[in-house]
Amino acid sequence: MDSQVIEQGEAGDKLLAQKDVLRPFPKTRRTMKAFLLGVKGILFRVGDDWYFLFALGVIMALISFTMDFTVSKLLNAHRWLQQELGNNTFLRYLSWIVYPIALVAFSTGFAQSITPHSGGSGIPELKTILTGVILEEYLTIKNFGAKVVGLTCTLSAGSTMFLGKVGPFVHLSSMIAAYLGRMRTSVTGHYENKSKEHEMLVAAAAVGVSTVFGAPISGVLFSVEVMSSHFAVRNYWRGFFAATCGAFMFRLLAVFNSEQETISAIFKTNFKITFPFDLPETFFYMILGVICGTISCAYLFCQRWLLGYVKRNPYTTKLMANDKPVYSAILALLMATITFPDFLGQYLASRLSMKELLVSLFDNRTWWTLSQNMSSPSPVGVDPQNLWMEWANPQITIFGTLLFFLIMKFWMFTLATTLPLPAGYFMPVFIYGAAIGRLVGETVAYIFPDGITSDGVVNPIIPGGYALAGAAAYSGAVTHTLSTALLAFEATGQIAHILPVILSVLIANAIAQKFQPSFYDGTIIVKKLPYLPRIRSRQINSYKVKTNEFMKTDIEVLPRDAKFDQILQVITSSDDTEFPVVDNTETRVLVGIVKRSHLVSFLETHEHNQEPRSPGHKTDGSLSDGCIEPVNFQLSSWTSLHEAHHLFVLLNLQHAFVTEYGKIVGCVTRKEMRKAIENLANPK
Amino acid sequence: MDSQVIEQGEAGDKLLAQKDVLRPFPKTRRTMKAFLLGVKGILFRVGDDWYFLFALGVIMALISFTMDFTVSKLLNAHRWLQQELGNNTFLRYLSWIVYPIALVAFSTGFAQSITPHSGGSGIPELKTILTGVILEEYLTIKNFGAKVVGLTCTLSAGSTMFLGKVGPFVHLSSMIAAYLGRMRTSVTGHYENKSKEHEMLVAAAAVGVSTVFGAPISGVLFSVEVMSSHFAVRNYWRGFFAATCGAFMFRLLAVFNSEQETISAIFKTNFKITFPFDLPETFFYMILGVICGTISCAYLFCQRWLLGYVKRNPYTTKLMANDKPVYSAILALLMATITFPDFLGQYLASRLSMKELLVSLFDNRTWWTLSQNMSSPSPVGVDPQNLWMEWANPQITIFGTLLFFLIMKFWMFTLATTLPLPAGYFMPVFIYGAAIGRLVGETVAYIFPDGITSDGVVNPIIPGGYALAGAAAYSGAVTHTLSTALLAFEATGQIAHILPVILSVLIANAIAQKFQPSFYDGTIIVKKLPYLPRIRSRQINSYKVKTNEFMKTDIEVLPRDAKFDQILQVITSSDDTEFPVVDNTETRVLVGIVKRSHLVSFLETHEHNQEPRSPGHKTDGSLSDGCIEPVNFQLSSWTSLHEAHHLFVLLNLQHAFVTEYGKIVGCVTRKEMRKAIENLANPK
Repeated sequence: MDSQVIEQGEAGDKLLAQKDVLRPFPKTRRTMKAFLLGVKGILFRVGDDWYFLFALGVIMALISFTMDFTVSKLLNAHRWLQQELGNNTFLRYLSWIVYPIALVAFSTGFAQSITPHSGGSGIPELKTILTGVILEEYLTIKNFGAKVVGLTCTLSAGSTMFLGKVGPFVHLSSMIAAYLGRMRTSVTGHYENKSKEHEMLVAAAAVGVSTVFGAPISGVLFSVEVMSSHFAVRNYWRGFFAATCGAFMFRLLAVFNSEQETISAIFKTNFKITFPFDLPETFFYMILGVICGTISCAYLFCQRWLLGYVKRNPYTTKLMANDKPVYSAILALLMATITFPDFLGQYLASRLSMKELLVSLFDNRTWWTLSQNMSSPSPVGVDPQNLWMEWANPQITIFGTLLFFLIMKFWMFTLATTLPLPAGYFMPVFIYGAAIGRLVGETVAYIFPDGITSDGVVNPIIPGGYALAGAAAYSGAVTHTLSTALLAFEATGQIAHILPVILSVLIANAIAQKFQPSFYDGTIIVKKLPYLPRIRSRQINSYKVKTNEFMKTDIEVLPRDAKFDQILQVITSSDDTEFPVVDNTETRVLVGIVKRSHLVSFLETHEHNQEPRSPGHKTDGSLSDGCIEPVNFQLSSWTSLHEAHHLFVLLNLQHAFVTEYGKIVGCVTRKEMRKAIENLANPK
Repeated sequence: MDSQVIEQGEAGDKLLAQKDVLRPFPKTRRTMKAFLLGVKGILFRVGDDWYFLFALGVIMALISFTMDFTVSKLLNAHRWLQQELGNNTFLRYLSWIVYPIALVAFSTGFAQSITPHSGGSGIPELKTILTGVILEEYLTIKNFGAKVVGLTCTLSAGSTMFLGKVGPFVHLSSMIAAYLGRMRTSVTGHYENKSKEHEMLVAAAAVGVSTVFGAPISGVLFSVEVMSSHFAVRNYWRGFFAATCGAFMFRLLAVFNSEQETISAIFKTNFKITFPFDLPETFFYMILGVICGTISCAYLFCQRWLLGYVKRNPYTTKLMANDKPVYSAILALLMATITFPDFLGQYLASRLSMKELLVSLFDNRTWWTLSQNMSSPSPVGVDPQNLWMEWANPQITIFGTLLFFLIMKFWMFTLATTLPLPAGYFMPVFIYGAAIGRLVGETVAYIFPDGITSDGVVNPIIPGGYALAGAAAYSGAVTHTLSTALLAFEATGQIAHILPVILSVLIANAIAQKFQPSFYDGTIIVKKLPYLPRIRSRQINSYKVKTNEFMKTDIEVLPRDAKFDQILQVITSSDDTEFPVVDNTETRVLVGIVKRSHLVSFLETHEHNQEPRSPGHKTDGSLSDGCIEPVNFQLSSWTSLHEAHHLFVLLNLQHAFVTEYGKIVGCVTRKEMRKAIENLANPK
């Protein structure tokens, strides 16, 4: 510091001190001032993560709430229109189908016209980004508008399209995080490294989930399970803090909007907590887990097949290439026709919105008992207090509607996932699982109408508990996550069923993970994004396969004193982004790496067989040490595939050089590793 | 396969097939048989993790339940004795103090006589083991008996000693896991690598927590947060599965023992879920977070100071060295005297057991209102339905007892942590936090006796919710974890307070993490176990400090063709366990490492300046390539401290060699790194 400045500062302090003396309690006031300045210093450090994460949470909560608000207004308008049209079936049909067709076509057209990245959920792409692959343009802010507007339209089409919002919210949240990160860097000038970016993206994913369900803890866990292969506990709080801010704000807005009296769960249930379930029921919960696991395998297989089929089939390929909105409109027409309440829709509870579907399935009453005592066979409008009545069809009973719902939605939802519009697929899966659970629960309640008696006390069976377990187990199996169990508790505000629900989730997951890749991995495979399969613990051969059996051996190396010609030759013969530097081409001892960009700029500043243009450069026209970067990590020829895979995943490596007593002998990229792992599963 | 064997096999198959034909449905039966064999093959693979984890969970649940059962019987016997002795104060005092003194002295003596490792919780040591340090003897099965018997005695001393069982259970569980792992290796002969062991220990820690609280999800999360610096999502299910088995079995045993009607939470609460808290109360929950954070800082400081003081003070050091039971007995005498119900104990609710203390604090009623309407001022025995009456003292009111409890237990518990007996410190911290929360909650309820009116509806304040938040926030702050929030919900079976509780936990954690190391880290520091401090995100200098500024440069290297003399010289001049091998001593290019044990056996098989004894050895008497192991990982001179630290933590490294263009220039161990991080905080 300049001495003059210090003097000035001291003079200022003296002046202040003199002024202070004239006021009462000068000492106390000074101590207080120093304390407050200290607190200010702690709180207001520019670029601190707290603000960043807080802002992220609040922004996402605002977007989520606004979207929900708009969607519910639009859905209400549609419902009102349907009622106003009275008995004219044709007009009602027309209004029923035009609404989703228009919204879905607009959503597709609008989103695709701005950016082709806005389709689908975005989680598979984000997952790929978090493994270290750079997907340019994917997190740019211009996707934002496309995704928000498109998603609002998609959701406004209601349960006809059967789509959700979790995936796009994770994508939106990570876009905002990336944008805020860039803004922060430009304000503070701090260098933001890769690992920090990574942490922020994981936190953003947590915010995305938590602002949809108002579930902070499971938001963090779900995003970690889906996104990362490992996670640092040190950064746990980031996701936690941001997700809590988001969830709190999201529920707070609901209170301000008088939707609720106080902050509480989004799909609040009212199960009996003194006796939630009887011990023998655990067996049925386990069966539910098996059923959910099996159906999820079938679903994952069909979904992956259909996604591939739509890409292969020449007709759909042509349609997708030129007229995406038309494809969406055709599908919307099909689905709206099926769900028309006067037609098959009466067996599908199609008048309920997505939220109402879930709330009705989590009902703590037994539908079968209720439907026995039902007076009016078919209510005119949807009764918010008795949503279950939409499921009670006098002809085929509630069992019939539930079964029909499960069968129809299976293929309808599979078809809906091929739509090229911004949409989430978690919520539909969650509802589907709840329907499976409800069917099982109602069946158990039907078989044991008086409950399973233990010690003379009669405790009726609560099918809602099965719906909860089904939702958690099925969504967990489809996404290969366990934290859906917690999500179910946080979203419903009750945790009494914890042990049976976790049992179901574990069983369903064991089955699904054994036979199918997860929904997100499946999409990554179909979309041909870079993907590293996992090594299963039973593949003990992975310990026996050594790196020298699968590494790439034809690699270009540069000697440390490489001249223009050598560099030119190497750079033209390969399009790698990094080249290994060796001490000389005979011993080939690896001393570092050099980036392609450095080599290109070297070639630009030097000329062939000439002295460099400027005197600042080295005069011998060879690579300077300055552009050689150190190699922190290298594999040896005898590293096992298992260990190499573990390190690739842990360190997010894209490639690694292989050495043998310091001498470079090869290179392993994710491609080689993937091939080696696939060979493990299908040995030639 | 031998052709004869195949023929025999085929002949056998034919015979079987012929037999089968005689029975009905031969085809169906064969298909079924093949299917069942397939299922059997999937389920009964020897050494599969499922069985291992299942066994671990069940064994720990059995131990936990048996211990709880024994402890409750012993506590009941003590309570019965106290009642039988009637009005004779001296006899009652005698029986009150003799019981804990005898138990605690026996616990100390028994545990210490078997193994000195059995004292304390065991979590700090386990945490150290999981960073890759080998603490011999710590996980041997002979500690098991010492810990089980010792802990049972400690717990039987009741709330007088104010100690819990979480930590020892984590230790017990990891001992069993290590034992089962060794057993499995000996049965299957499979090679079990380091990372597998690591995973199993983390899963074991989860089982330990979950079998104490019956809380599977938070068991996993808490153990991950406390034990690991990062964790692999791929192995998530292991902990989850084992913890669920443990928790399920633990609660199942309670049902079989007729303690409960069905599987439910261990400290079941009964809060109003329709309106758990009003919006403005969030503010008080935040204040509670600040209070808990502040008190936790004070506690952590005092605890660390006292632990150190006991080690430094010559009198206590002498006592601890020779007469540990005497030390324990003196402390027990002091505490039992203070908690004697006719003396100060009446202000400390000292007649309640640990579990009753927690249940009473989580009461959904307002103590202040209850105590206003109380008829009998002092009940004779403890009323299980009205545990709060133990807190209601007519002289100093409930506020007085709560405040007195907090003040007394602060130093009493700090003192108790110095006891050299097997004991856990989580449960007392949890109860202490609940008492802080109850005090704040009762105060808020006192200030707003009619609740905070919103829209004319009167909703009284539930102090139990504050107790829940206090327990989660204080225990979270002391252990630097966030998952205590979830633990509180799982243990009480209600999740309605989720958002305010998480807010309190976050605030308390922010304060505690800012000013103090966690309870476990503090113990590690005092016990002088190897410890790597974390780098705080505000220490941006860690990006600027390069490895060459803190590495150790005086390292011994071996040339690849080292002769007997050189090896002897290197091995005697240093006691490192690994030595770097270079191609030659001039270029010093790192080509590999060689283990000390290899060098020693080399020296044993070769003789100085002589031909080797057996003809199988290399004839030139230099190191063979066979014992040179590859270096997978090396730092460069320009790696930043931040990155180096990150890699050390991520890869559980103990040391790494530093190279500069392939040439070895130094070495970094955890010691150097620790010093460098400490220099960041206190620059010279």
